Amino acid sequence: MRKKQCLELKPIGVIHSPYKNTGKAPHQGYKSEDISSIEVFKEFNEGLQDIEGFSHIIVIYWFHKSQGFHLLVKTPWDDIPHGLFTTRSPHRPCPLGLTVVELVAREENVLKVKGLDAIDGTPLLDIKPYIPRVDERSVVRLGWLEGKLGEKGC
Amino acid sequence: MRKKQCLELKPIGVIHSPYKNTGKAPHQGYKSEDISSIEVFKEFNEGLQDIEGFSHIIVIYWFHKSQGFHLLVKTPWDDIPHGLFTTRSPHRPCPLGLTVVELVAREENVLKVKGLDAIDGTPLLDIKPYIPRVDERSVVRLGWLEGKLGEKGC
Repeated sequence: MRKKQCLELKPIGVIHSPYKNTGKAPHQGYKSEDISSIEVFKEFNEGLQDIEGFSHIIVIYWFHKSQGFHLLVKTPWDDIPHGLFTTRSPHRPCPLGLTVVELVAREENVLKVKGLDAIDGTPLLDIKPYIPRVDERSVVRLGWLEGKLGEKGC
Repeated sequence: MRKKQCLELKPIGVIHSPYKNTGKAPHQGYKSEDISSIEVFKEFNEGLQDIEGFSHIIVIYWFHKSQGFHLLVKTPWDDIPHGLFTTRSPHRPCPLGLTVVELVAREENVLKVKGLDAIDGTPLLDIKPYIPRVDERSVVRLGWLEGKLGEKGC
């Protein structure tokens, strides 16, 4: 049976980024040397205890500039449209962004990170430790993306 | 300035899982051979186009049994508490779960997957393609988790 529930989230922080609008954010931020600052609201500071020990974290955020979505989308990586859920488009029914970033430094409740492609002012929803044993898989098939990222020099 | 915004999400589907309650879900589902069914509501079916080509997908869901949180938590992997954001505890300010799973088969709007540790009835929020070039990192430091997962035989 279809549930019509609606779930509510409150951001735990805000991302300060060198990318002031969506046109400035790189398509694949993981290649960038740019530094972003993740400000975790002070009431959650204790939850960051021991995070300095991790070199990489998973950042989940809200695509706050996203408005609406299409179920078939064209991406920079192919000339034909593909199903939205086979892409990383920010225009999604639940506009949740996800990036694995390098944790460069912590200054109290602010995390300096490298490789985050979110734009300035993005609401922060969650931080999780990146654990290769848990988060990595031996991938056999990449679908329509096979060879595309490499072919574009990216 | 602190933003007091509240963000709303509507699930795009529901997860049918062999784990009927939180006590039954494995701590590290990626090791399990159990099959779960991800039912994507039919109105989003077109967004699954071409997904069969991908062997692995990222599933984002709502920890619907989670109630409240503590900023310092004890986990099965250590005797002392650590900052919540250095753990994968389901009890979080934004109760978002994230698992990389193997896509075994697609039957219309239902995806059969392996390695998902969500419990039965979990609201589905998003599906993204898993792309090693984008999602994997060469990890140098794992913080307090270093050696813990292996030491527990997990």
